[in-house]
Amino acid sequence: MSDLTLYTPSGVLAQSQPLKRAAKRLSTLGFDVTIDESALARHQRFAGDDDERLAALHRVATSAPAVALATRGGYGLTRLLDRIDWALLGRSVEQGTRWVGLSDLTALQLGLLAHTKQISWAGPLACEDFGRSDADGGVDEITRDCFLEAMDGSLEAVGFRTEVGFDGLEARGTLWGGNLAVLCSLLGTPHFPRIKGGILFLEDVNEHPYRIERMLLQLWQAGVLDAQKAVILGQFTGWKKSPLDRGYNFKSCVQALRDRMQVPLLTGLPFGHVPTKVCLPIGAKTELLVEGRDVFVAWGHVGPGGHDHHHHGGHEGHGHGDHDHSHDHGH
Amino acid sequence: MSDLTLYTPSGVLAQSQPLKRAAKRLSTLGFDVTIDESALARHQRFAGDDDERLAALHRVATSAPAVALATRGGYGLTRLLDRIDWALLGRSVEQGTRWVGLSDLTALQLGLLAHTKQISWAGPLACEDFGRSDADGGVDEITRDCFLEAMDGSLEAVGFRTEVGFDGLEARGTLWGGNLAVLCSLLGTPHFPRIKGGILFLEDVNEHPYRIERMLLQLWQAGVLDAQKAVILGQFTGWKKSPLDRGYNFKSCVQALRDRMQVPLLTGLPFGHVPTKVCLPIGAKTELLVEGRDVFVAWGHVGPGGHDHHHHGGHEGHGHGDHDHSHDHGH
Repeated sequence: MSDLTLYTPSGVLAQSQPLKRAAKRLSTLGFDVTIDESALARHQRFAGDDDERLAALHRVATSAPAVALATRGGYGLTRLLDRIDWALLGRSVEQGTRWVGLSDLTALQLGLLAHTKQISWAGPLACEDFGRSDADGGVDEITRDCFLEAMDGSLEAVGFRTEVGFDGLEARGTLWGGNLAVLCSLLGTPHFPRIKGGILFLEDVNEHPYRIERMLLQLWQAGVLDAQKAVILGQFTGWKKSPLDRGYNFKSCVQALRDRMQVPLLTGLPFGHVPTKVCLPIGAKTELLVEGRDVFVAWGHVGPGGHDHHHHGGHEGHGHGDHDHSHDHGH
Repeated sequence: MSDLTLYTPSGVLAQSQPLKRAAKRLSTLGFDVTIDESALARHQRFAGDDDERLAALHRVATSAPAVALATRGGYGLTRLLDRIDWALLGRSVEQGTRWVGLSDLTALQLGLLAHTKQISWAGPLACEDFGRSDADGGVDEITRDCFLEAMDGSLEAVGFRTEVGFDGLEARGTLWGGNLAVLCSLLGTPHFPRIKGGILFLEDVNEHPYRIERMLLQLWQAGVLDAQKAVILGQFTGWKKSPLDRGYNFKSCVQALRDRMQVPLLTGLPFGHVPTKVCLPIGAKTELLVEGRDVFVAWGHVGPGGHDHHHHGGHEGHGHGDHDHSHDHGH
């Protein structure tokens, strides 16, 4: 039975109920769940002050559970980046810890990649994805299954449907990315990984397309986008139209980037602030294949460092693409 | 009589009335006003498509009026940065053009500084500051007077009240800055000026303090803040409290930065998305002096390049500090 620790590195948990539900559900799914002692700490909008959250992070790294799953994102890791013992976190990965999360966790994951080259997992957050009440939709089955496969090491690829025009595309490189605003907030700092020839995936929430465009253009102007083999956009949700848009929308933003970029910009990745999300190994060598409108992102087996695991075949190209068509945001 | 051109480099003007009012008021103030032919152009959320806005910008630069005043900000200059003829804009400054504005104009002004070292003016926008109806408050007197003095070359300093704790502070360096989000969006790109030992001023609107903090921490982690002699915060307005803040506010954000920064972080500059705003020469050699709680930012005379103007004495330390105490945002 895999041990799994729930901890809160960023924003405060407003209620304890989702955390309890998540712990119970994850236990039912077969994990030996520990809740970090500071998971419900409160300091202003943070889950404890900087010292307390940093201590929690280092405590989890020291205990090196099989899975270190953040309870929620929010804001807070930016404050800790310069004080994190990256070597300690890197050693936890070598011992087998999979650090999982998204949103503010992007800062932790990209910092880990920049400082140690170790792999972590873009994936669900405990409270949002495993702590939702049944009345509120409960646990998304694809998110759950993908998480379970990623955590037991059997997930080797994900699939999704993209727009026409990319048939036959093939690319190999380091998979990296996460939340666009958080990734951009690392640019120019020592915590931004310098990945060349990679496959970059991005998502965001509550950002108007003009802001998404401004961030993407910054990455393009900084040379980051065209240094990749491909860029994949996940879900950009929660933004509100403005009367000033006059037809400008997410599609316009994507077009503005495609007009400038030298490398392919794909859309449709089922990842972001949405119920259905895949798990993706940040830092893993990955292959991107497009057949018609079907995209496959495959990395083979990503096991705990230093261990020799069996290769679980039969998953390549299986992914979770069959279920993703319902997640059409109109772009 | 100084010639002044109104142009729209970024967001679309929803109505023509504020532009007409601004043109009339600026004429009354003694300017020979020209409205650029594309000032009211419309393409989605932009004042014309990229080609049209770029052509407008280059047309204004070629005509080199005494004052090039943007009608409004919004979003749009980011799209043009890689296509702007910076040498052409630089020559306009040498011929005497003062480029004025704020918000999205920060991209133009910092790009100009990065590419040509030429000075431009952080200051009002035509529609917002000179186009407001009398029923809606009309023209702010301080903003108007400061703008007039800056444009005729007589403004040599501004003053304002800051918090206690900076008495006796003296610093000399290049004054630069503007909108925090726009400035951050240039980081890592060729359009970000590499100013060492400068005096950096920042403002923003509709950004929650946690986002302001994240941007400031990025600048700090990127080495930008501590490379300055001092950082001055203007007005950060328009953001909404969240139930999750639990006491976290703009003051907490400032404290988080002061806990980390090696250089002074002052607050209170009357500049930003507020009715009362001073004009500041971006790129000018500047002296910062604090006496008690009174801050003086003085640059002496900044005239058109290549011309020899008289030094207008008697303004140093006069500034507009007497009127700024009413602009206390509680931090």
